[in-house]
Amino acid sequence: MTNRRERWERHTQLPLIALSVLFAVAYAVPVLAPRAPGWVLQGAAWAEWAVWAVFALDYATRLVLAERRWEFVRRSPLDLASVLLPLVQPLRLLRLVSTLLLAGQRVRMASQVRLTTYVAGVVLGLLVFGSLAILEIERSSPHASIRTLGDALWWSFTTMTTVGYGDLTPTTGLGRLLAVALMLSGIALLGVVTANIAAWFVARFEAEDRLDHLNHRAIQDLTAEVRELRRELAELSRQAEPGGEPAGRVPSA
Amino acid sequence: MTNRRERWERHTQLPLIALSVLFAVAYAVPVLAPRAPGWVLQGAAWAEWAVWAVFALDYATRLVLAERRWEFVRRSPLDLASVLLPLVQPLRLLRLVSTLLLAGQRVRMASQVRLTTYVAGVVLGLLVFGSLAILEIERSSPHASIRTLGDALWWSFTTMTTVGYGDLTPTTGLGRLLAVALMLSGIALLGVVTANIAAWFVARFEAEDRLDHLNHRAIQDLTAEVRELRRELAELSRQAEPGGEPAGRVPSA
Amino acid sequence: MTNRRERWERHTQLPLIALSVLFAVAYAVPVLAPRAPGWVLQGAAWAEWAVWAVFALDYATRLVLAERRWEFVRRSPLDLASVLLPLVQPLRLLRLVSTLLLAGQRVRMASQVRLTTYVAGVVLGLLVFGSLAILEIERSSPHASIRTLGDALWWSFTTMTTVGYGDLTPTTGLGRLLAVALMLSGIALLGVVTANIAAWFVARFEAEDRLDHLNHRAIQDLTAEVRELRRELAELSRQAEPGGEPAGRVPSA
Amino acid sequence: MTNRRERWERHTQLPLIALSVLFAVAYAVPVLAPRAPGWVLQGAAWAEWAVWAVFALDYATRLVLAERRWEFVRRSPLDLASVLLPLVQPLRLLRLVSTLLLAGQRVRMASQVRLTTYVAGVVLGLLVFGSLAILEIERSSPHASIRTLGDALWWSFTTMTTVGYGDLTPTTGLGRLLAVALMLSGIALLGVVTANIAAWFVARFEAEDRLDHLNHRAIQDLTAEVRELRRELAELSRQAEPGGEPAGRVPSA
Repeated sequence: MTNRRERWERHTQLPLIALSVLFAVAYAVPVLAPRAPGWVLQGAAWAEWAVWAVFALDYATRLVLAERRWEFVRRSPLDLASVLLPLVQPLRLLRLVSTLLLAGQRVRMASQVRLTTYVAGVVLGLLVFGSLAILEIERSSPHASIRTLGDALWWSFTTMTTVGYGDLTPTTGLGRLLAVALMLSGIALLGVVTANIAAWFVARFEAEDRLDHLNHRAIQDLTAEVRELRRELAELSRQAEPGGEPAGRVPSA
Repeated sequence: MTNRRERWERHTQLPLIALSVLFAVAYAVPVLAPRAPGWVLQGAAWAEWAVWAVFALDYATRLVLAERRWEFVRRSPLDLASVLLPLVQPLRLLRLVSTLLLAGQRVRMASQVRLTTYVAGVVLGLLVFGSLAILEIERSSPHASIRTLGDALWWSFTTMTTVGYGDLTPTTGLGRLLAVALMLSGIALLGVVTANIAAWFVARFEAEDRLDHLNHRAIQDLTAEVRELRRELAELSRQAEPGGEPAGRVPSA
Repeated sequence: MTNRRERWERHTQLPLIALSVLFAVAYAVPVLAPRAPGWVLQGAAWAEWAVWAVFALDYATRLVLAERRWEFVRRSPLDLASVLLPLVQPLRLLRLVSTLLLAGQRVRMASQVRLTTYVAGVVLGLLVFGSLAILEIERSSPHASIRTLGDALWWSFTTMTTVGYGDLTPTTGLGRLLAVALMLSGIALLGVVTANIAAWFVARFEAEDRLDHLNHRAIQDLTAEVRELRRELAELSRQAEPGGEPAGRVPSA
Repeated sequence: MTNRRERWERHTQLPLIALSVLFAVAYAVPVLAPRAPGWVLQGAAWAEWAVWAVFALDYATRLVLAERRWEFVRRSPLDLASVLLPLVQPLRLLRLVSTLLLAGQRVRMASQVRLTTYVAGVVLGLLVFGSLAILEIERSSPHASIRTLGDALWWSFTTMTTVGYGDLTPTTGLGRLLAVALMLSGIALLGVVTANIAAWFVARFEAEDRLDHLNHRAIQDLTAEVRELRRELAELSRQAEPGGEPAGRVPSA
């Protein structure tokens, strides 16, 4: 049972990551070209809904294939909310958050993806989607300082690295909420980078650890002792033979 | 004796955390609604005093139940100060700091709470109470830039993550003192996050540590050696039997 | 010989730390009260020179007591420079840096001081002296934003924690050089805090390390094996006795 | 074959680092003295091209000496691009990036250079070249705030330490791209500093690790056991001698 779910997760991983890129493009169109012809904007909106629907379907499939369904639901309540929320309140930003959460959870579940790659991916995703979202949110505010995609990317970057120049800052409540998400993932990124380097350092330090060497030498001493014991036992055994040699004679060893 | 204190600490933990939330509400009322009817403000002030009194009582109880009372007092002089200070100088901000210190110390003492949870709780508490306090402090200043709860929360967050945009900054001495506390706990938060990830990485790296494997193989080699020794000894023992078989014949093994 | 130097270092540690505090006071007087009566300013200047002289004397004494003098000088060229520079160029700021370097080196050499305490001390010292120095440097600049001791302390703190609001910034070259020193020690402080927490986490994780347990169990299995071997050997020994019991009888064991 | 490449890399390391310094000087001349006589500016441009050519030649030599040439190219596609790009598009900034990448890769390959030294060198290099580049880029912008070398160095430093005052910020797209590179290497620097301190702490903690001690004691117990066994075996051996002593007599031990 679990094997079928794992096989499903392994096979669908790449197509779903490709869909995330499509979602990014569909989300970017009305933000970057708000005066595009109607059918383009309509198509982008449909593509957004379609990608969300595929991720919702993927969640449902994994739920059906799961061994213990109740535990599957209980362990990730955010995923269930991400599936249901866009149905209740079809806000654009909500659909973005829902799709990102579902895609993120999906990638994290794939056992081949390592933590470092995952965090790097999340950071990159947040950078791109965060820039698009802040641009959309702030553009409507009269006092906004973030007005172009370049500004939005620059602001996202200075926020995530916790540099925070303050030449551009969000002015709306939603924009600030988004900034909080960017800061927190920036801190996580910093933690992962540092931890990675630290673990690498520690592993190198340990290879020269004294106590481990001591242990190793103790075991080697012991083995030498036991080998000596076997040699003596062999000698004894030869002496105990019915027609054995008298003691005192040194064996050929 | 110690057991009675530990039992007390275990049983009172949850009610005290609930009281901290009540304190937050009582403290928030006059900050967020300074023009509320007199009885509301009066009730909030009473609730504040009551929560402080319960925490002071808790401290006294733990002191009575402690095995070595003098050591209990000496080990946490800040707690004693927190109990006594609001009696001497009934400043509102002082009561806030006192209650927070007593509650924090109380939670830290409970053995079930892990460091990560504790730091996360302290950070959240400082975020909420810091925002309320900075709002109260700065509002009276003529040049203040922090004037709404949203501003206060946003400023607290950018300060704790050390992003520090500088779009909002405290202008009073008290506000800056508060900012210093927020920055320091932000650094601690960063440290805990990084340390957690690093420890997890290191633990995974170590599982593949070469020297440990070497040690393990050395011990396995040694065990094989000793097993061989036992086999030979069994053979010897059979030969030494009064009516034993002559040497040279291979045993059935 | 080395013992005499170590004894000297142990005995002079506390008086020298007390002198550092005196230096702080003497340095603060003309910065905070530039219009104090002449004899006060003169006394402060003399006190500054006296403290520097004591630290220079301490360096000379340690050099005389050192076993290998040339190595002592070569290992800390900055210390020699700190002793000689104020004689060549009696600038006030240079005397501050020289005395701080000598005092810092002196405290670091004392073997009882742990890294964490040392870094905390250096950070505190830089905070106090950095605030006084930035105040003195910036006050003369026409566009300065740092004009009071409160401002200076606040700026030093936001710089060391890398928050960097930017509400106050140095405008002179010397002030910026000072800021660089503050930032670098802030990063070191952050590193020490994180490293401390990380090491504590790692130590806890390791106690439950699987491979170590595996090793331990392997050794226990081996010991049981060897005990069994001794039991069998004892039985064999009894059989080999001149009037030994016949094989087949089970020993009492 | 590999040995010849390694010998080449060892022998050319120092001259190449010296050339990097020459490149810095040649790059600085037209930035800091744009009104210098024509032959000076021309000479600086020629020196820049010459240094790039030497690094390109070094790459070609290493490629020829490499055992598996295809793998050598495939493993560092950025290096090949750095060699070819300045030929296609002789932009000044591109030549800077190309030479820096080639020099950095070259230093990293030298086996004697440790990670800490490498990161420190990269950070220093980025600080110097970043300051020169931002000065050149921003000077042409009408709203630029970075206009002198002092400003550029100060901005680079506040960016790399993630302090980010925001008193000076890049206004052009290229300048912001450069800022991103500075921030990322600042984070790496922070990670290396923290990791270094953490690894040192961890190594000290581990030396007192309990389980390792436990293991060590277990092995010592076991060795004592085996020694006792040998003593008994020796006794048995003496008894089994043709004219051996009767059992019951205690050996001299």
